Amino acid sequence: MAMIMKRLNIISRQQAIFRQRLGEKQGLSELTPAQHTLILAICRLPGRSQEEIAREMCINKSTVTRAVSALVDAGYVTRIPNDEDKRELLIYPTKKMLLALPTVKDITRRWAEIITAGISDAELSTFEGLLEKMEKNAREALGEGIE
Amino acid sequence: MAMIMKRLNIISRQQAIFRQRLGEKQGLSELTPAQHTLILAICRLPGRSQEEIAREMCINKSTVTRAVSALVDAGYVTRIPNDEDKRELLIYPTKKMLLALPTVKDITRRWAEIITAGISDAELSTFEGLLEKMEKNAREALGEGIE
Repeated sequence: MAMIMKRLNIISRQQAIFRQRLGEKQGLSELTPAQHTLILAICRLPGRSQEEIAREMCINKSTVTRAVSALVDAGYVTRIPNDEDKRELLIYPTKKMLLALPTVKDITRRWAEIITAGISDAELSTFEGLLEKMEKNAREALGEGIE
Repeated sequence: MAMIMKRLNIISRQQAIFRQRLGEKQGLSELTPAQHTLILAICRLPGRSQEEIAREMCINKSTVTRAVSALVDAGYVTRIPNDEDKRELLIYPTKKMLLALPTVKDITRRWAEIITAGISDAELSTFEGLLEKMEKNAREALGEGIE
């Protein structure tokens, strides 16, 4: 059972290596692998607060703040005050991010194809169901307030 | 299928949060979550080279070098030249690391228990088999030379 987390962490790190390598080949060398994940989260639902993004991704708020600031500096993100609560900043992709998005998605899709080669749809469905249960167990154990 | 990597990365980050929180409570606040993984790898097979550890963990050699140096500075690791090739340094745990090991193992075990709650042994076995296949697919795609 200890091997489950070991393998899962390895696959996660392998994806980071793949994203770095392909990103460099495809003109995205200024993006880190973690920023690929953040770009997908921001573009999936534009206009969310950093807190919402942090909660979805299970990242500390301070880490998301730093990561979003880096994307702002690099011209990928704009932060716009929430009309209903001016203290809250909402995160939107810029044109530069939207132009990078198809490549980020393509790299992510290619990685999924690589690791799932030779595995049937039924097996993948079972696998994803169990992953979903594990993620839920983990969210319950950690609580909502991930600091 | 895209959700597989998303969930897998989330569970990996959730484990990091758990290790940080429990580590702080149990006197290991000077260790980062990634160092927990490195400690397990070093203590499992003492006397390996950094290259061997990098290959097992799927981490860049330069990242392992930095991570091991940090553990040396903190007194957790000693590097001893290989008798058969003096240029190669082999990594051994110090007494300080061996004293921390039971706590690192306990935190890792508790996390595995949390995420696998309510999942049968048969399901876990299927799950681990598929993870193993994915890791193998990934290793083949990335090649041995992870730089």
